[in-house]
Amino acid sequence: MIIYNDRLVEREEIQIDIEDRGYQFGDGVYELVSIYDGKIFRLKEHLDRLQYSAEQIGMTLPVSLSTLETNLYKLMEVEKIENGQIYFQVTRGPAPRNHPFPPSAKPVLTGYSMFKPRPVESMQKGVSVIISEDLRWLRCDIKSLNLLGSILAKQKAAEQGAIEAILHRNGTVTEGSASNFFMIKDGKLHTHPIGNLILNGITRIVVLECAAKAGIEVIEQPFTLKELEQADEAFITSSTMEIMPVVQIDGKPVGAGHPGEVTRRLQEQFEIART
Amino acid sequence: MIIYNDRLVEREEIQIDIEDRGYQFGDGVYELVSIYDGKIFRLKEHLDRLQYSAEQIGMTLPVSLSTLETNLYKLMEVEKIENGQIYFQVTRGPAPRNHPFPPSAKPVLTGYSMFKPRPVESMQKGVSVIISEDLRWLRCDIKSLNLLGSILAKQKAAEQGAIEAILHRNGTVTEGSASNFFMIKDGKLHTHPIGNLILNGITRIVVLECAAKAGIEVIEQPFTLKELEQADEAFITSSTMEIMPVVQIDGKPVGAGHPGEVTRRLQEQFEIART
Repeated sequence: MIIYNDRLVEREEIQIDIEDRGYQFGDGVYELVSIYDGKIFRLKEHLDRLQYSAEQIGMTLPVSLSTLETNLYKLMEVEKIENGQIYFQVTRGPAPRNHPFPPSAKPVLTGYSMFKPRPVESMQKGVSVIISEDLRWLRCDIKSLNLLGSILAKQKAAEQGAIEAILHRNGTVTEGSASNFFMIKDGKLHTHPIGNLILNGITRIVVLECAAKAGIEVIEQPFTLKELEQADEAFITSSTMEIMPVVQIDGKPVGAGHPGEVTRRLQEQFEIART
Repeated sequence: MIIYNDRLVEREEIQIDIEDRGYQFGDGVYELVSIYDGKIFRLKEHLDRLQYSAEQIGMTLPVSLSTLETNLYKLMEVEKIENGQIYFQVTRGPAPRNHPFPPSAKPVLTGYSMFKPRPVESMQKGVSVIISEDLRWLRCDIKSLNLLGSILAKQKAAEQGAIEAILHRNGTVTEGSASNFFMIKDGKLHTHPIGNLILNGITRIVVLECAAKAGIEVIEQPFTLKELEQADEAFITSSTMEIMPVVQIDGKPVGAGHPGEVTRRLQEQFEIART
């Protein structure tokens, strides 16, 4: 079954209109949550961010956050999900095509479960990434359905056998196409500050908590590609990739070319936070 | 009826999947054509641009351009459209949600007719616009479904009683949220050059042809908001607004505050081109 506005229905029962603004404008916002042992990880943060994203584009959610929460857990029950993910999105709904917000449109919420296994092996070994220009719009703090910039970067990475594209604006590193990015230099954790240029990732928030617990100093300041070349360690974070060590950037090893000690400590802390 | 891939069907017959990439990523491209007296205006240019946009995002159209052309005219016949518009879009199609291009996805083409009357009165009197920051991505040459940046700007304009938002990047004027923008200074026509920052508008192309015919010098160079303040005349162009004089920007009159002589000459030339 799937979540459709305030209820659960069979996927075949619902009809998405060709003039749904999600379909014509990418006019909507979304979340993807991870489920560990029957519990949604950091659900409150995800729901709050959904609300934030919707507000930023002047959209009202079609259901209360508590109704949504109830339905997420109902979906897990009927779909028998103990571990996996739920994707959910809200579009501004169907309206005769015109750019400004249509006063009559009723937002449409859809959500369904997925199952991607945790990438345990990659989290041990680390992954390769590429560097790509950040072509996205200037409101990356909104988790919106306008994802072409991310898609094109991710596709480019895939074509080069890499798992992610790390983006930069004029030489300043922002984040991954679908992840936040961190580098470690002399034991300190560096990451781009939140603001309009990156998503305030939930896993990013958890990592900052983990760093505090592990006594790792965090520097939330932009850094350049040049500075990244000198990194001792690097990793990306997202709800599905958790803390994923980056061992190669554009074919060159990061530090010693294998997951570093600070990354390991953060992964251990994350494991505690997750369970 | 509507166009659905290679045929015409009733709108109710088709089903858009919740995992259509158009619905989840805005992963698609579109065109909107104007119909005058039973003929689609500059259809070849629109079809070529659709092809260009699709190529730029690594997508193959589900039908040939000639099949699409045939179906556009069929739609006009069954819907008895002598004057109006047809909107059509192509998404990458349904696939399990994942950023990179899914090898298995089959693109989905949908198209339908609309009827917005020509804004004849506004074309005579002129309209008001506002200035807004250009927040869009850096591939505005692709006519994609990632339109949130345009929507937010257009909505801001609407809230201020204006018809359009003219966008700027760090003080350099690019184009309107859903139109190209021109200013006239000392009899010369200024507009941003094509490239990744603006859409290569079909009406823009026609206007440049009209300017050549009318002996009006064209300067395709970026200009600043400061320079715009000194403009004698200004106008926006799009398939639905044609050549629309701008008489007020952020509440201040442009030149004498009414449509100027160069704009009129271009409108006359456009009328010849259109009919």
